[in-house]
Order: sequence, then C-alpha cells, then structure tokens
Amino acid sequence: MTAEAILNKMGITLPAAPAAVAAYEPWVRSRNLVITSGQLPWLDGEMAYVGKLGAEVSDEQGYEAAKLCAINALAQLKAAAGDLESIHQVIRLEGSVHSAPGYRGQPKVLNGASDLINEVFGSRGQHTRTALGISEMPLDAAVQLSVWAELES
Amino acid sequence: MTAEAILNKMGITLPAAPAAVAAYEPWVRSRNLVITSGQLPWLDGEMAYVGKLGAEVSDEQGYEAAKLCAINALAQLKAAAGDLESIHQVIRLEGSVHSAPGYRGQPKVLNGASDLINEVFGSRGQHTRTALGISEMPLDAAVQLSVWAELES
Amino acid sequence: MTAEAILNKMGITLPAAPAAVAAYEPWVRSRNLVITSGQLPWLDGEMAYVGKLGAEVSDEQGYEAAKLCAINALAQLKAAAGDLESIHQVIRLEGSVHSAPGYRGQPKVLNGASDLINEVFGSRGQHTRTALGISEMPLDAAVQLSVWAELES
Repeated sequence: MTAEAILNKMGITLPAAPAAVAAYEPWVRSRNLVITSGQLPWLDGEMAYVGKLGAEVSDEQGYEAAKLCAINALAQLKAAAGDLESIHQVIRLEGSVHSAPGYRGQPKVLNGASDLINEVFGSRGQHTRTALGISEMPLDAAVQLSVWAELES
Repeated sequence: MTAEAILNKMGITLPAAPAAVAAYEPWVRSRNLVITSGQLPWLDGEMAYVGKLGAEVSDEQGYEAAKLCAINALAQLKAAAGDLESIHQVIRLEGSVHSAPGYRGQPKVLNGASDLINEVFGSRGQHTRTALGISEMPLDAAVQLSVWAELES
Repeated sequence: MTAEAILNKMGITLPAAPAAVAAYEPWVRSRNLVITSGQLPWLDGEMAYVGKLGAEVSDEQGYEAAKLCAINALAQLKAAAGDLESIHQVIRLEGSVHSAPGYRGQPKVLNGASDLINEVFGSRGQHTRTALGISEMPLDAAVQLSVWAELES
C-alpha cells in the first residue's frame, strides 16, 4: 500500500502544504535531500494547539499537536517530492516542545509525530530524532517539528 | 551582480570569519555541503547584542542581531567555499532567539537573517528555517544562527 | 593508532549503543551520512547526570555529562559504520545544555564532547557545533548531544 493510501485508511487527508510564516521557504530540495522548515500545528489555517505542555496543553493534546505537525510535514514532503513514494527514507525529526517549568514528557509528545511517520512509511520511516523542551515558541505553538528525508535516486 | 557586490552595495563589507568560541571549527565542508557552527552577533570582536528579546533587547535590535549573525555566517561560507559564487543554494537557517518569558516574536527577529540571505543570493538564497526561543544563550548573545549550504559541483 | 585504540588508551571502552527512549532509531545512515539521535548521559543503563547546570549540576559534572553523551554517540557511530575507522569526518555536534536561569557556560560544558571527539579522531574529528541552553530536557538529563558524520566512500 502506498504511504498516501495508508494515510487515507487512517482517515487523514493531506492538507495543502502550509505556507511559511516569515521570509523563508517551507521546504528545500538539495540533491537527494529534502528538508522542511519548522512545522507548526496548523489545521485549516488556524493554530490548533497553543500554549505550554505542563500547563495549558495536556500530554494527549501535545501528542495530537506533534501528529498534526507531522501531517503538515508530509504535505511539504509531497510538495517537494511530487509523490510520497519518492521518499526513500525519512532520516530525521527535530522536535521542540513548548514546555512549562518542570515538564519532562517531551519524548511521549513527539511520539505523536514518530508514530505517524513509522505507520505511514514502515521501514522507510525509521528516523533519528532530537527532542528539546523550550521555554518560548513562535506563535505560542505547542510543538515545532522539522523533517529531513532522502529521496530515491 | 555577484553576492559580494550586492553586499557591498548594501554597505556591508564581509568581516574576517569569526573564530569559534570553544573546541570546534567555525565551518566544515562535507562533499557538496558546507555547514557553519552557531554564529553569534560579533562585531569587530565584541558581542554587539546581549540579553533577551522581550527584556533588554528590542525587536529592532533583535532583527539587527540576526542580520549580523548572517553576515558572520556569510564570512564563514566565503572562507569555506573560497567565493560566495560557489554557493549553489543556501538550504537551511537554524535560528535561536534568547527569549524572556512570554516573548513570541522569534520569526520577525530571524527575518533579519533571512531577508539578508534572500537579498544577497536571490533564488540561490531560498532556504528552510527553524526558529526556537531559548531561555539561556551562550555568552548572553541575543541570537544564534547556523547555516547549511550546498556548493556547486 | 585507530580511534578505538585511542579510546582504550584513555581508559574508555565503548558501551553497547544505547537504545532510543521512544519511537525512533538511535542512528540512521543515508548514503554517506550517519546521523545519531539525541544522545543522553546514560551509563550502565542509568541516567548519570540529571538536573540543570547552574543549579544541581556543576560545570565539571556538565563537562563529564557531555563527554558521556559523546561516548554514547561513538557507540552509535560504530554500530552504524561497523568500525570507527570508516568515519571520514565528524561534521557536526548539536548540543543542548539543561540550564538554570542565568547560566551561560554552555560552550565549556559541551567541550566535554568536543575535546573527546577531537582527541579520538584528530583531524577527522574537526566538527561544527551548535550550543543551546534549554529550560526543560527530556528525562531531566543534564546534556543532549547529536552527531552527524560523513563515512568513507
């Protein structure tokens, strides 16, 4: 089954790739690499999850926010590659979680992105990850996620 | 017009590439990639912008700090590539903004770097970006910026 | 002398490469690149350095934490490459330091990682670096470190 068919079976339709919020591009292709800019939890043009984990945002909401960032990243990868089947390997997720003092659940939150990538791409989705808890996030978003992927030759 | 001619027309002369502040290199070339270390807003050997956005540092100063980081990054790219004309594409800016509690203007601040890169390189400067607001920055700098670029073959 | 012989001379035996703490891989190879996930200061299955620099964790302990992250990253590189001699160049360390308010010693702490990489690999270890001070770290670890390396063709 294709990555997009798996997404559809999960009830997910890829949105239009969100525009960048400032003077940069949402993705760039460099030879066999595709890199996305930091994706935020946009849904239908609205920031769907705002605030900090450990305060206004629950762990479950954080997981959904990370999943939504990953869906937006997939839309960028599709825009860059033409087709998700052209992705040879997702190589890296860089995640930042907007964190209130003392919050330590960043890895579980970012699993919202990792679980989706793993399910959609199978072995092609096996990725490295970084997870930071930061105090101040652009636009008060709950999560930010960048994705690096290798394209088929 | 060359990238450096555009810089000069903007009244900017590239400084000597700043040295690293600790046990690492200011740039590394790996095949067709050039990567800079995190650049800080050094000007003539002094840290020109210290403190946090949303506190001691205004948005306008933050924009100038990001621009200065980008100027220093261009000096590194030139040192790595020999000539800015050897840069095929700037592929990524990774920006961190030293942020007081509640500060949300990271994207506008980092436009100080993005606007410069876009103006100097045109379509070769179209880059992805990440923007984090962090609570504690090395040397109390206002902004830190890393740049990834692809060289001509 | 091989990288591993130098490590052994320093009294360091590479541990088994630590498993990922969530739904991702500890390393990925993409063509000539090897990337590790964020490494934490695990020692014999225990988190050896917890808390914040500038509070519970001293500068000396932070340096050791960064060194331990680098040792774990070397174990990942070996797992990925088969042999540390297959590493052509370490190109990047991305370091985050769990920082209490006002802490500014991130570069010295991360030298714990850089010094080790430089000593073990010599000129093959000359790397770029980013250094962030973040307020909340997964698992309360003192340091997190990711490594990018280029393999021999």
